[in-house]
Amino acid sequence: MRRELTLLRPSNNGNRYELTNPTAMPKAGGFLWNQKMMIQITCRGYATAQFMQPEPAKYAYAPNIEAKTFMQPEQNYYAHHPGRFVYIKDLETGQLFSAPHEPVRATPDRFVFSVGKSDVAWAVEHMGIRVEMVMGLPTHDVAELWTIKVTNISGRPRRISVTPYFPFGYMSWMNQSAEWSEDLVGVIASCVTPYQKATEYFKNKYIKDKSYFLCETPPDSWDASQQAFEGEGGLHNPSALQEPKLTGSDARYETPTAAVQYRVALKDSEEREYRFMFGPAYDNAEIQTMRSRYLSKEAFVRTADEYAAYMARGRGCLRIETPDKELDNFVNHWLPRQVYYHGDVNRLTTDPQTRNYLQDNMGMNYIKPDVSRKAFITALSQQEANGAMPDGILLAEGAELKYINQIPHTDHCVWLPLTLEVYLSETGDYGLLKERVRTENGDNFTVFERFSRAMDFLVKLRDHRGLSYIAQGDWCDPMNMVGYKGKGVSGWLTVATAYALNLWADVCDHEGATDLAKRFREGAKDCNAAANKHLWDGDWFARGITDDDVVFGIKKDTEGRMWLNPQSFAILGGAATPKHISRILPEIDAQLNTPYGPVMFAPPYTKMREDVGRVTQKAIGSAENGAVYNHAGVFYIHSLYQLGGEQDRAYTHLRQLLPGPSESDYRQRGQLPIFLPNYYRGGWKEFPRTAGRSSQLFNTGTISWAYRCVIEGLCGLRGDAEGLIIRPQLPSSWNAIKVTREFRGATFELDIRRADVRDVVVTLGGKALPEPRITNIKAGETYQVSVSVPR
Amino acid sequence: MRRELTLLRPSNNGNRYELTNPTAMPKAGGFLWNQKMMIQITCRGYATAQFMQPEPAKYAYAPNIEAKTFMQPEQNYYAHHPGRFVYIKDLETGQLFSAPHEPVRATPDRFVFSVGKSDVAWAVEHMGIRVEMVMGLPTHDVAELWTIKVTNISGRPRRISVTPYFPFGYMSWMNQSAEWSEDLVGVIASCVTPYQKATEYFKNKYIKDKSYFLCETPPDSWDASQQAFEGEGGLHNPSALQEPKLTGSDARYETPTAAVQYRVALKDSEEREYRFMFGPAYDNAEIQTMRSRYLSKEAFVRTADEYAAYMARGRGCLRIETPDKELDNFVNHWLPRQVYYHGDVNRLTTDPQTRNYLQDNMGMNYIKPDVSRKAFITALSQQEANGAMPDGILLAEGAELKYINQIPHTDHCVWLPLTLEVYLSETGDYGLLKERVRTENGDNFTVFERFSRAMDFLVKLRDHRGLSYIAQGDWCDPMNMVGYKGKGVSGWLTVATAYALNLWADVCDHEGATDLAKRFREGAKDCNAAANKHLWDGDWFARGITDDDVVFGIKKDTEGRMWLNPQSFAILGGAATPKHISRILPEIDAQLNTPYGPVMFAPPYTKMREDVGRVTQKAIGSAENGAVYNHAGVFYIHSLYQLGGEQDRAYTHLRQLLPGPSESDYRQRGQLPIFLPNYYRGGWKEFPRTAGRSSQLFNTGTISWAYRCVIEGLCGLRGDAEGLIIRPQLPSSWNAIKVTREFRGATFELDIRRADVRDVVVTLGGKALPEPRITNIKAGETYQVSVSVPR
Repeated sequence: MRRELTLLRPSNNGNRYELTNPTAMPKAGGFLWNQKMMIQITCRGYATAQFMQPEPAKYAYAPNIEAKTFMQPEQNYYAHHPGRFVYIKDLETGQLFSAPHEPVRATPDRFVFSVGKSDVAWAVEHMGIRVEMVMGLPTHDVAELWTIKVTNISGRPRRISVTPYFPFGYMSWMNQSAEWSEDLVGVIASCVTPYQKATEYFKNKYIKDKSYFLCETPPDSWDASQQAFEGEGGLHNPSALQEPKLTGSDARYETPTAAVQYRVALKDSEEREYRFMFGPAYDNAEIQTMRSRYLSKEAFVRTADEYAAYMARGRGCLRIETPDKELDNFVNHWLPRQVYYHGDVNRLTTDPQTRNYLQDNMGMNYIKPDVSRKAFITALSQQEANGAMPDGILLAEGAELKYINQIPHTDHCVWLPLTLEVYLSETGDYGLLKERVRTENGDNFTVFERFSRAMDFLVKLRDHRGLSYIAQGDWCDPMNMVGYKGKGVSGWLTVATAYALNLWADVCDHEGATDLAKRFREGAKDCNAAANKHLWDGDWFARGITDDDVVFGIKKDTEGRMWLNPQSFAILGGAATPKHISRILPEIDAQLNTPYGPVMFAPPYTKMREDVGRVTQKAIGSAENGAVYNHAGVFYIHSLYQLGGEQDRAYTHLRQLLPGPSESDYRQRGQLPIFLPNYYRGGWKEFPRTAGRSSQLFNTGTISWAYRCVIEGLCGLRGDAEGLIIRPQLPSSWNAIKVTREFRGATFELDIRRADVRDVVVTLGGKALPEPRITNIKAGETYQVSVSVPR
Repeated sequence: MRRELTLLRPSNNGNRYELTNPTAMPKAGGFLWNQKMMIQITCRGYATAQFMQPEPAKYAYAPNIEAKTFMQPEQNYYAHHPGRFVYIKDLETGQLFSAPHEPVRATPDRFVFSVGKSDVAWAVEHMGIRVEMVMGLPTHDVAELWTIKVTNISGRPRRISVTPYFPFGYMSWMNQSAEWSEDLVGVIASCVTPYQKATEYFKNKYIKDKSYFLCETPPDSWDASQQAFEGEGGLHNPSALQEPKLTGSDARYETPTAAVQYRVALKDSEEREYRFMFGPAYDNAEIQTMRSRYLSKEAFVRTADEYAAYMARGRGCLRIETPDKELDNFVNHWLPRQVYYHGDVNRLTTDPQTRNYLQDNMGMNYIKPDVSRKAFITALSQQEANGAMPDGILLAEGAELKYINQIPHTDHCVWLPLTLEVYLSETGDYGLLKERVRTENGDNFTVFERFSRAMDFLVKLRDHRGLSYIAQGDWCDPMNMVGYKGKGVSGWLTVATAYALNLWADVCDHEGATDLAKRFREGAKDCNAAANKHLWDGDWFARGITDDDVVFGIKKDTEGRMWLNPQSFAILGGAATPKHISRILPEIDAQLNTPYGPVMFAPPYTKMREDVGRVTQKAIGSAENGAVYNHAGVFYIHSLYQLGGEQDRAYTHLRQLLPGPSESDYRQRGQLPIFLPNYYRGGWKEFPRTAGRSSQLFNTGTISWAYRCVIEGLCGLRGDAEGLIIRPQLPSSWNAIKVTREFRGATFELDIRRADVRDVVVTLGGKALPEPRITNIKAGETYQVSVSVPR
């Protein structure tokens, strides 16, 4: 047994990440999705899957009646958490283990958990048997496709049983059952989605209330009852495995499960390969169709190819080669994949928050700008009559605003110009602004008019001092008590409004609406002046002022003393002068930075402060109470790159977003570097044991900004109306990088090096350009570009 | 190891029931309550506890975010289900077991699970160690009081560790933590009840968000983190128990737990006794107060005495001595206890369904009629302006109608006269009728007037045929699609309305309101005539007619062909003539009866029949789809006793309510005979494996009717305005019984025997009375009564 912990990262050119010890990072996992479903699965075999019909639903459940809730961070696993497992038993010695690792938790001789972009795979060796498991998804259907291969590597003949165990869990209090189907060759579980009102019956009528586990080849025995399978032995040693065959049980208003057993004799080096499908269906006819469509070796291969092609369509517009190989792998493979996920499926919700929807689609500009274009139209078609944007954008018929979208937030309009900026710089498509968009309330304006109305709304949404109202929250959900009486203001929103207004004024200028541009620039100035008058605390900007006129996020506060977002947006929106900035940046370094990135604010609250709100109700360092909240982190990085001359600070923080490369960093964060989580635990001084721990949540507004920072900031490759501006901001320790950038249909291959130049010099076709900007770009062409940057 | 399964029942004069094998009936358990909390705990150590603040809340949680829902039947247990456990480890051999049985599940050498009326206790022997556990409750506070005693019975000195493990579970996504407190000598867990709306903050502000596990004597080590305690070992073999001491962990936004360890050296026969407290609190000051008040040997003894006295106040009004000792035990000890529970705490809900509230208080007439009297006033104070009763009765400020109480049912008024009948016969207090009751809508009527208004409402709530509308449900919740369009009618409610009107007419007569009496009797006649015209199917009464004029519960139906309730109430309300009855009873015997009692209807539905409603969505034989639904069973028994001459059928069905006495019956039902569950599984023909299985739910309208049937039916001891009527209905196999009945402050000791008499003859003070009725009863007196009943 190999006891060392080697994280084989990355293998196969960064297309895969591998983990060789299931106990080093027990929550580390991978995720796959298509437009109808998502599954997150850990190295130990626990899984969380959901599909859309159209609201999120499950086909494998917890062992009790779990609450329907939003996606939770730092999910806890426990013995009966839903998962996908296979038991291997030596029929001669009676020895037992399970792959991937749960539920038996035997110490493996060899373990590889391998996360690919279009599959998740394991190789586990124990007792002279190798178990290889691979999970894939179809591109257009809801189902898991599992291959389980067992190989005798013991050097002698063996008799073993192979028992895949895919529990369905507690499906419904109204009705649940499961039984073996000879016709379908699998365990079919049925339930009735619970309801009490007669009207719900009709609403639920076509819900997929069946779950299936299908076997390509008939097993020797099976169990459909959790209790019968598990018996007194428990999950680590199920009673049914102590008998010659599984009990053939059914489940009748009992917890359904799927366990099937193959008993095999294997010669040395002999292997057996099994295929299974797991998913939901409306009826047996649909299950039969799914079986015919997917459950064969040929179909698995074809489906994997299709799925890989689907993933490849999200590969992004940037390839980099830098001295930081970890960053290269992440930026070239995983970052665009996560951006694609966000733009492709909108976090698998029917009512994304407006700010999330716009930002997720901001990232999609780098992958499929057409999708982003449609998203603007969709969002604006739900604009309110007064110019405000709603709290969430409804994407499906019958969808409703849920959870946090029922709480009034005031910031949604801000995100329109911030995210439009990327659309315009990627596409140069100012034509979008002329599109007419009609809302349900009947008004009919162009995109340009709608943006102006949203900006006017923001300008009006301010108090007598010129500060922006916060109502029950701005970007920060938990600050729901700062202004719930209608008077409190947000420092962040005030300076962010200035940023939005300035950005929009630039577009107005481009469109020749100079009066409007002037008006919005004046609005921005007014916001900034108000911020400076009421919120500048000497070394940084305050976070806000409550209904009862308490300024917070200031020096005299012992908790929540300094907040990151007001500083970043003061830089972006112009409230912060160079003099301000020279004071702010060292304070951020001193007060907010940690090894895992700057925290959202510090120090964390230790108890409820009623005039600041719910934020203080959260655990220290977790989610909203002083976490390394990456979404705030990337705003700061963006502001540093916008500022210029701060490439080292920017790179430092960009790099902190990623776990590793040191092993202790991986372990502490508990996550493979295949996605950026929404937060790492803060509380670095208070609770060092848990600081840095990953939320394991890959739904986050962080991601599109991170990609933007790499493309526009680090690589300095940003479009304008006519061309591509080139202003790389390499950290001082780097001398050269290579970049391939796809832009408006053309490919730019850039060789970027330090040289004795005073400003960036771009050489194209042997000629130095007069400014670092390439215009007259021809789609389909490849441009070889040399770039010299100052030492 | 003793392998036989002997259920030592009952021990200690029926005050306790004992189970000697934890695997025979894994879900069998006991329950304790006080006015602020309830706990149900299984023989294996799994527990479900809730307390009122004022809505039901928890202090020990599931391992995930569990949905808040109504109490579910046939609760499923799983490894991490909340429970109370103690691990015992031999420090010399490393051998481990746990008491009561989970999580290690070692096969005990001796096991006794002993359910008392005021405690739950275990004695478990394994590895030469005896573990005795006792759980009690205080009378007025929310807390569990645990005594854990270990004794060395191995005949040699031993070194062991004793590790109580009381997991707190996943408390909240907003905040959860736990740590050891030196001051309080225990593990203190904290959380914030989740909310999102600012208004909820104020609502939740004084919620008890702390849970504590306190030790009388300081342990050697502890764990407050579930993950740290459990580690890779898992619950059956926690990692922390493989080390010299527990890890001293805290939990920070991690799953909190309480595990504490004592390492002891025991001489032969030496014992150690430990005391612990487990419960919720608002803050540490409250925890300190609770500790001082309860956590000592003296306080445990005093508290147990107080609690026993509290239970004794619910001992009921009847003691019987019959040839059926199981029945005696149940009726003398457990039946009144369960009746008391219902009347004492109203199922620990703030919005009991009106029919439940009235029926639960009907039972309370036999224990504390004052409580029942107040319940009538409370219920009537929420009567609607049109005479209707609401779907639920609100018992706490800020309470709301939840779950099923949001679905409109039409039967609530029916229960007023049915339950008043018992109040009047127990107390003779017709004065109640003269009380004035004001409602929130401002109207002000006497109880008598309110009853009449309710009866008028029932009379009006009928269609052109004279049949009672069902809306989205009558007594039977799941029939929510029979009349959701506003036209469908309930056969049961039509004949039940007749029953209610007749009962109320009798009261009107007593009060001299003969015109009213006449009017209501005519209403009853009208209902019965309509039932006979539209619902008599030749051999039984139909269950109803849908919105679309489909009559159901009739011969031509292949599923849901015959229903029990319409028959019982047709007998009670007079719709059924003797000729009808002679056809109905054999059909019930043939179509509905099973070894576990008559099912609610048969055959069960195998698929949804949209014109009949949700009932068909439930699993066959479970809850509402053809279960032995005991509440329907007791109505039938009541109708048989009211009918007279059916004492054998009545006794048979009364006896079926109780598990046992055969061991196979106990096993099949999976329940000790300490309470009547709301149902036993039906589907006797379809799924014999699960038929008879107990729901394990002790909240049921069954219970007050069962007690009433024993008192008024079997023993025939029912009051009228002036005295006590005596008409026992002994089953033909019995020759004699002895009964002690408390009635209006007097005690009646009855010796009831068969004799050569034509009618019941009652002899008092040596003299035969002219009729079987004792009047002129003097409170405080004891009457020795001889009763002769015909052979």
